[in-house]
Amino acid sequence: MFISFEGIDGSGKSTQARLLAEALRAAGIDVIHTREPGGSPGAEEIRSLVLEGDPDRWSAETEILLFTAARRDHLEKTIRPALKAGKVVICDRFADSTRVFQGVTRGDLQDKVNRLHDEMIGIEPDLTLLFDMDPEIGLKRAKGRQTAEERFEDFGQDFQEKCRAAFLDLARAHARFTVIDAGREIDVVAREVATLVKSRLDT
Amino acid sequence: MFISFEGIDGSGKSTQARLLAEALRAAGIDVIHTREPGGSPGAEEIRSLVLEGDPDRWSAETEILLFTAARRDHLEKTIRPALKAGKVVICDRFADSTRVFQGVTRGDLQDKVNRLHDEMIGIEPDLTLLFDMDPEIGLKRAKGRQTAEERFEDFGQDFQEKCRAAFLDLARAHARFTVIDAGREIDVVAREVATLVKSRLDT
Repeated sequence: MFISFEGIDGSGKSTQARLLAEALRAAGIDVIHTREPGGSPGAEEIRSLVLEGDPDRWSAETEILLFTAARRDHLEKTIRPALKAGKVVICDRFADSTRVFQGVTRGDLQDKVNRLHDEMIGIEPDLTLLFDMDPEIGLKRAKGRQTAEERFEDFGQDFQEKCRAAFLDLARAHARFTVIDAGREIDVVAREVATLVKSRLDT
Repeated sequence: MFISFEGIDGSGKSTQARLLAEALRAAGIDVIHTREPGGSPGAEEIRSLVLEGDPDRWSAETEILLFTAARRDHLEKTIRPALKAGKVVICDRFADSTRVFQGVTRGDLQDKVNRLHDEMIGIEPDLTLLFDMDPEIGLKRAKGRQTAEERFEDFGQDFQEKCRAAFLDLARAHARFTVIDAGREIDVVAREVATLVKSRLDT
């Protein structure tokens, strides 16, 4: 089973991905917890190119290519081998993040993102959990972290508002999505996520 | 005018690109001499990812994405602005190198390369000079250089033979190509190239 965690910056999805991995492992399930961009040695090198530095460093089109390159490497080296071995893959961001962060924020590039995805990736998660929250709170939380990976946060709140709306549009369009209210206490959200995923694994 | 220089490793095209730039500048022509992968600050950062390290570091598919990302940045930041300003652009490698090095060497990925090019790049040089030579001599010459950028040379001579044949196939298929016998003395080749390009610029 391939599960992706999606949401705007500061939505708490990375913490929730870690907590779900721990809960599944505690239940004896073989889990790989990985992330994008990154998740394989090559893709982690691409990560710093896209997440650090000036917001204007790359155009949205170049970003689409770099994120898809990182995703292809991640898929070949980490995700496909894990799925083949029967593991549950928990992935912090996947192609929906590219559909949103590159597809709708600087012109309408959604068709380009989708064609590139079909050509070079061609796989979707079985389940996508969208951690939805107020971008004002999310951005404050994200900017509170001490990290060099602030390139997308530096695009500002309007950018994050657009991203939130686009994520919700994707959730309405695709049955694999479940929207989680990420504004609640961490442990309340974590219990809901664990219950949901365990029920899916049992069916 | 947009001129690309193509050929296998060690074919002398980089030297010839430099000599042509000097000859055109001496004739009062405004020239940009650039290269791929690279040619813009972002693309130069991608360059080290693809040219250094283990041959098996990336699959051909991931390489296609990385080279196209670098090309998109190079096109936006360097090539298009120079062409717009009326300059002659001399580019050491362009999309034909991806058609060859990624398109034919590890399975037939030519259609993938072309679809990605049409989607994300969409421009071809006005003139492509193919520096053709014996891969055995070329590889010896290339390996004699002291550089960390040996990833493609490390694929070996069979790989370079395939590349030579694929470059010649492209030259037969596209009228923008002129094949140059690169096995001759440097200054003989340089005079031929300068004469050819000047006659094209005059028409």
